Amino acid sequence: MEFGINFFPTVGPDDKPAGTYFDEALRLAELAEDLGFDHVKTVEHYFFKYGGYSPDPVTFLAAVAARTRRIKLVTGAVIPAFTHPLKLAGKLAMLDNISKGRLQVGFGRAFLPDEFDAFELSMDESRPRFAESLRACQRLWAEENVVWEGDFYRFGPVTLLPRPYQRPHPRILVAAAITPSSCEQAGRDGHGLLLVPSISKREKVQEMLTLYRKAYAEAGHEPGGDEVHMSYNCYLSEDAGEAHAQGKEYSQRTNSVMVDAVAAWGQRRSEGYEGYEKIVDRIAKADFDRSLAENKVLVGTPAEVVERLRTIREWFGDVTISLQVISGNPAFEESVRTMRLFSEQVLPHFRDQD
Amino acid sequence: MEFGINFFPTVGPDDKPAGTYFDEALRLAELAEDLGFDHVKTVEHYFFKYGGYSPDPVTFLAAVAARTRRIKLVTGAVIPAFTHPLKLAGKLAMLDNISKGRLQVGFGRAFLPDEFDAFELSMDESRPRFAESLRACQRLWAEENVVWEGDFYRFGPVTLLPRPYQRPHPRILVAAAITPSSCEQAGRDGHGLLLVPSISKREKVQEMLTLYRKAYAEAGHEPGGDEVHMSYNCYLSEDAGEAHAQGKEYSQRTNSVMVDAVAAWGQRRSEGYEGYEKIVDRIAKADFDRSLAENKVLVGTPAEVVERLRTIREWFGDVTISLQVISGNPAFEESVRTMRLFSEQVLPHFRDQD
Ligand SMILES: [Ca+2]
Ligand SMILES: [Ca+2]
Ligand SMILES: [Ca+2]
Ligand SMILES: [Ca+2]
Ligand SMILES: [Ca+2]
Ligand SMILES: [Ca+2]
Repeated sequence: MEFGINFFPTVGPDDKPAGTYFDEALRLAELAEDLGFDHVKTVEHYFFKYGGYSPDPVTFLAAVAARTRRIKLVTGAVIPAFTHPLKLAGKLAMLDNISKGRLQVGFGRAFLPDEFDAFELSMDESRPRFAESLRACQRLWAEENVVWEGDFYRFGPVTLLPRPYQRPHPRILVAAAITPSSCEQAGRDGHGLLLVPSISKREKVQEMLTLYRKAYAEAGHEPGGDEVHMSYNCYLSEDAGEAHAQGKEYSQRTNSVMVDAVAAWGQRRSEGYEGYEKIVDRIAKADFDRSLAENKVLVGTPAEVVERLRTIREWFGDVTISLQVISGNPAFEESVRTMRLFSEQVLPHFRDQD
Repeated sequence: MEFGINFFPTVGPDDKPAGTYFDEALRLAELAEDLGFDHVKTVEHYFFKYGGYSPDPVTFLAAVAARTRRIKLVTGAVIPAFTHPLKLAGKLAMLDNISKGRLQVGFGRAFLPDEFDAFELSMDESRPRFAESLRACQRLWAEENVVWEGDFYRFGPVTLLPRPYQRPHPRILVAAAITPSSCEQAGRDGHGLLLVPSISKREKVQEMLTLYRKAYAEAGHEPGGDEVHMSYNCYLSEDAGEAHAQGKEYSQRTNSVMVDAVAAWGQRRSEGYEGYEKIVDRIAKADFDRSLAENKVLVGTPAEVVERLRTIREWFGDVTISLQVISGNPAFEESVRTMRLFSEQVLPHFRDQD
């Protein structure tokens, strides 16, 4: 299994000035490399405390690339609907070169109605926009003299500069929240998968994984071992009581900023997002103790978290885990402690099984 | 006077792999800080060797921000027509925070027909698009709950996250190639100015500067001393003959990639770009020895370049100079030497006059 840190900010100016946020996040990213984690990841969101400090994951990851030498950089995810593919493919190719080939590109459809509204885009078009943009980026990276005649973009012949460092292009990952057919498509296309196990039942995640892996294998793609990424809120302490109390507080805070961000789903339905109103409902009713019992958060002592991860591996197989150690706005020193305890007492149990 | 380095790449994959380009550029950016330069700047261009390795200046400057502590970071320029203002303002605000307030944002209209074609934008709309996007970014940075109802964008109320580090926002600079009224407008608005003295006669540049400074003063804006930026190709050697021979070679190469990039102007006219066909003509006919005689390139021994800069200061006053030390694709060591000679033997002559 591989492990990394997912920078999912849940703060606004009244919680933490952005200068402090980025200073701390860059220090934690350097620490992640020093502690032997495999990747640094960050999100794309706008306007809300829920991810809003990170409207452009490439900008943050470029800074991380300049401060590190080994660790992989993962967008989790970029939203192609909000950036022209010529621009998106170009800046990702820059990042791939700046990092000397450490980039993996997660693409997402986005799901917050307020974001689509601000960019004047219809959520109903989200699926075809996503498919077209992802494919356009892939061709711009892999081919020269690209002529693109799609439903949303027409350009070419153009040859993207710079050419990506990785040939034909960086690994592509597809964010799939709850839609099994998206997983199947990603598998057929040979892309990786970004999953959020906390918002679905275990059986649902397993169903999505089975479809994905079957389609991936049937299409003849080579397994890389790090195709499937899953993010978990994570809080560790050697004191079990403290771990649970603080882990609960930060999980609840994370949840409460998510409730604000998804509020618009109360008055919105979109054919491209069937079932999303249920997610919203589930988030509003989320209960920390149940989440903990269902292994949807990695909270506890190191020994406890080792057990949780063994169970997760039994359920889902050899997946890549992204730890959310800043969500809920813990003190910087608490995030450092969680990462150190994980590196020292949890990671070693999962390194040899690779 | 202030001095910095403008990273204007003129290479493609057959000249230099992009991994090498960014590795060298980041090392030169660190060196710029260590040698006492005031800023690092880079361009936004696509597809051609003329700037095409830099489709997103923010990505490169974020990496520079992570490797430096003091030096200012300047976009020279971002093209708002190619990025939604919510996205553009957001990532620039991230960079301002990552760099702890070292950002200055140059905005440009772009002028290459192939770039507008690829983004499916009419050049005729370039001026109103530019004005609307710049103003939208400025309001998104300075205000909360922004409602925008423009000709090209409608959104809000939204509060941009993250808030910029500098309040109300980073200094804004406006790229003005040949249009005096753009300079006047920039002055009225209290913005800085990015000028390219190599493409105009000295008297034309002086006319633009006079209009700018008059409008700036009459509108009651505080002079900061670093409002006016000018870029110059620069090559130094202690051997005058070598400096001229190599400086000429690199200037001619720079010119030849520019000729390729502007070729589409041969069959294009746009009401927003009156007179641009003449620039193209001028570039095609450019003669290095005449450019040198007219102080449009900073080439020579350090003593010679000191004299050239004294003349430039007499002509244009206390401006900020951006040295193009990689354009034309000199060897890395030659760029290093130019920067060292400039820092040691040229800079000291212009520090005390501030
Ligand atoms: Ca390190
Ligand atoms: Ca593995
Ligand atoms: Ca507490
Ligand atoms: Ca340094
Ligand atoms: Ca000054
Ligand atoms: Ca030579």
